[in-house]
Amino acid sequence: MSAHTPTTPQSAVTVIGLGPMGRALAGAFLEAGVATTVWNRTPGRDRELVARGAVGAGSADEAVAASQLIVVCVVNYDAADSVLRRPEVTAALKGRTVVNLSADVPDRSREAAAWAAEHGIHYLDGAIMTPAPTIGTPDAVFLHSGPLELYREHKPVLDALGGSHSHLGEDIGRAAAYDIALLDIWWTAMTGYMHALAIARAEGISAQELAPFAKGIGAILPPAFDEAAVEVDNGTYTAKINPLTSAASTMTHIVHTSEAHGIDASVMRAAEGLTRRAIGLGHGGDELSRLAELLGRRA
Amino acid sequence: MSAHTPTTPQSAVTVIGLGPMGRALAGAFLEAGVATTVWNRTPGRDRELVARGAVGAGSADEAVAASQLIVVCVVNYDAADSVLRRPEVTAALKGRTVVNLSADVPDRSREAAAWAAEHGIHYLDGAIMTPAPTIGTPDAVFLHSGPLELYREHKPVLDALGGSHSHLGEDIGRAAAYDIALLDIWWTAMTGYMHALAIARAEGISAQELAPFAKGIGAILPPAFDEAAVEVDNGTYTAKINPLTSAASTMTHIVHTSEAHGIDASVMRAAEGLTRRAIGLGHGGDELSRLAELLGRRA
Ligand SMILES: NC(=O)c1ccc[n+]([C@@H]2O[C@H](COP(=O)([O-])OP(=O)(O)OC[C@H]3O[C@@H](n4cnc5c(N)ncnc54)[C@H](OP(=O)(O)O)[C@@H]3O)[C@@H](O)[C@H]2O)c1
Ligand SMILES: NC(=O)c1ccc[n+]([C@@H]2O[C@H](COP(=O)([O-])OP(=O)(O)OC[C@H]3O[C@@H](n4cnc5c(N)ncnc54)[C@H](OP(=O)(O)O)[C@@H]3O)[C@@H](O)[C@H]2O)c1
Repeated sequence: MSAHTPTTPQSAVTVIGLGPMGRALAGAFLEAGVATTVWNRTPGRDRELVARGAVGAGSADEAVAASQLIVVCVVNYDAADSVLRRPEVTAALKGRTVVNLSADVPDRSREAAAWAAEHGIHYLDGAIMTPAPTIGTPDAVFLHSGPLELYREHKPVLDALGGSHSHLGEDIGRAAAYDIALLDIWWTAMTGYMHALAIARAEGISAQELAPFAKGIGAILPPAFDEAAVEVDNGTYTAKINPLTSAASTMTHIVHTSEAHGIDASVMRAAEGLTRRAIGLGHGGDELSRLAELLGRRA
Repeated sequence: MSAHTPTTPQSAVTVIGLGPMGRALAGAFLEAGVATTVWNRTPGRDRELVARGAVGAGSADEAVAASQLIVVCVVNYDAADSVLRRPEVTAALKGRTVVNLSADVPDRSREAAAWAAEHGIHYLDGAIMTPAPTIGTPDAVFLHSGPLELYREHKPVLDALGGSHSHLGEDIGRAAAYDIALLDIWWTAMTGYMHALAIARAEGISAQELAPFAKGIGAILPPAFDEAAVEVDNGTYTAKINPLTSAASTMTHIVHTSEAHGIDASVMRAAEGLTRRAIGLGHGGDELSRLAELLGRRA
């Protein structure tokens, strides 16, 4: 759906939650000509959206009653529950569809879907993988899970948000599971980068001196991700490039350099601990991909 | 220097250490027509190289005596010292140039340079940032540090190794410092990916299902590295996109999901600990880049 598709009366959405992300979602719907009703716990957050044509609802149940499709984007599921599970809101939701784009753990999505089913509410879960400024652009990435038919029904309106939308499966927790795994990579890598910048500074290297080389490391991660994925799915861990013994030795150098500068090395210490444990279990000649196996193993 | 540059008598090198990397280095020198002498502690590792035209020296001092330029590439500085600091080898090195491409911490490079100066040995330090198969190709990345004039003198022969060569400064420890910081990013990110694969599997998602999305995360790291570098150099941490409170909340979700599956979350627990400590110090409204500042701060 482009910004110039004429609006039909069916093309209507309610957005609940007007943090940076909720505002970006509502803005993209408006931009695409979708009739948009908005509500936020703290009043006043809708001002700019109302000026752009949104309807600012006076209450959550009023907001819900305005559209068949309700997009929820608040901080987490506790927040979503505290809005949706008030009796008058739950009643208003009956027969409508909730797409919950708030981030949380997979089990919360599963529990919410069960609650929705009990109350005659259609329920889809989703996760947004890119920052608010990407919404409405081709760079946005949305993950969805839940009943495929229901997803297909609402896809034309969701497409107003731009970017790529992937339906990952009917298990309602699947979008959240991908979200958690992907954010695990993101936050671990970014924390590692912050630690690297601290070591660099202690060695007289500025962040912007290191950054071009750090980007070189970033560029070789994606092909390494592919290779390791094959190793993990096939269970073939024998080192071709870099045995765990060599990785552990490098990790020790990093911990040593960090702590010799008085810099906390707790993240790398934990990574080294896992690696040394894998070596202790006899896997010293394997690639790092052995860690995925070892971490996931049921005791 | 291309593979077809005619060899001059000056174009000669000795490679000490014939692990996967040392063999790749010697192979690239041979390929480029550089007269190459090789030696390794454990005999027999030179067979294929000798078949390709290398001279296999009978001892380390004999190897050193064969060339003005000695490239050392062994596991670490303990190993390099145990070869170079035997009296007959040290004597043979006098007046020659060592380029030590063995990985270790910056202080070891500094100590080795002082030792070399005492013994009339010219000394450069370096680090190799890409795996052995890249050597001799445009993808190889070499970092160098030490006296610039000395580096310039030997650069034509080092260019036979292919790829990009960066001289990072006269401080001999600088290449190792970059190496440590960059490997910190690499191993932290890769460990995070292994943990993500373990969570994914526990949620019924295969590694190769997650990998395409993981690569999407990998693709957004380099621009984020640039942005954070500016924040860190300028000391401007106020959140524009993602406050630490929000990062910490996500980290808690990751730890919870991991441990609910019985999966060790020690790396993310350490990252979350740093983040929560930053929040406790009043930085909850800052970007993650605040961690670089906090980690690097002298108590
Ligand atoms: N911002 C991004 O770039 C980004 C990127 C990807 C995913 N996400 C996800 O999108 C979701 C929303 O993020 P955000 O950036 O908009 O900001 P946020 O700080 O995560 O959430 C703010 C929203 O949550 C509401 N809220 C918090 N506690 C509540 C409660 N107890 N009851 C009702 N509402 C409550 C806030 O209402 P008040 O105004 O009343 O406090 C506000 O609407 C989060 O799950 C986040 O992880 C965000
Ligand atoms: N392989 C890569 O892709 C790669 C990438 C970037 C950087 N590097 C760096 O390059 C260096 C060499 O790596 P590598 O991959 O060739 O394998 P490695 O396993 O790190 O090192 C093997 C070499 O070290 C020698 N060695 C070990 N202990 C010794 C001692 N006490 N005395 C003398 N020699 C000793 C070995 O000799 P023996 O045969 O006698 O054991 C062999 O020549 C390392 O610092 C590594 O971090 C490697």
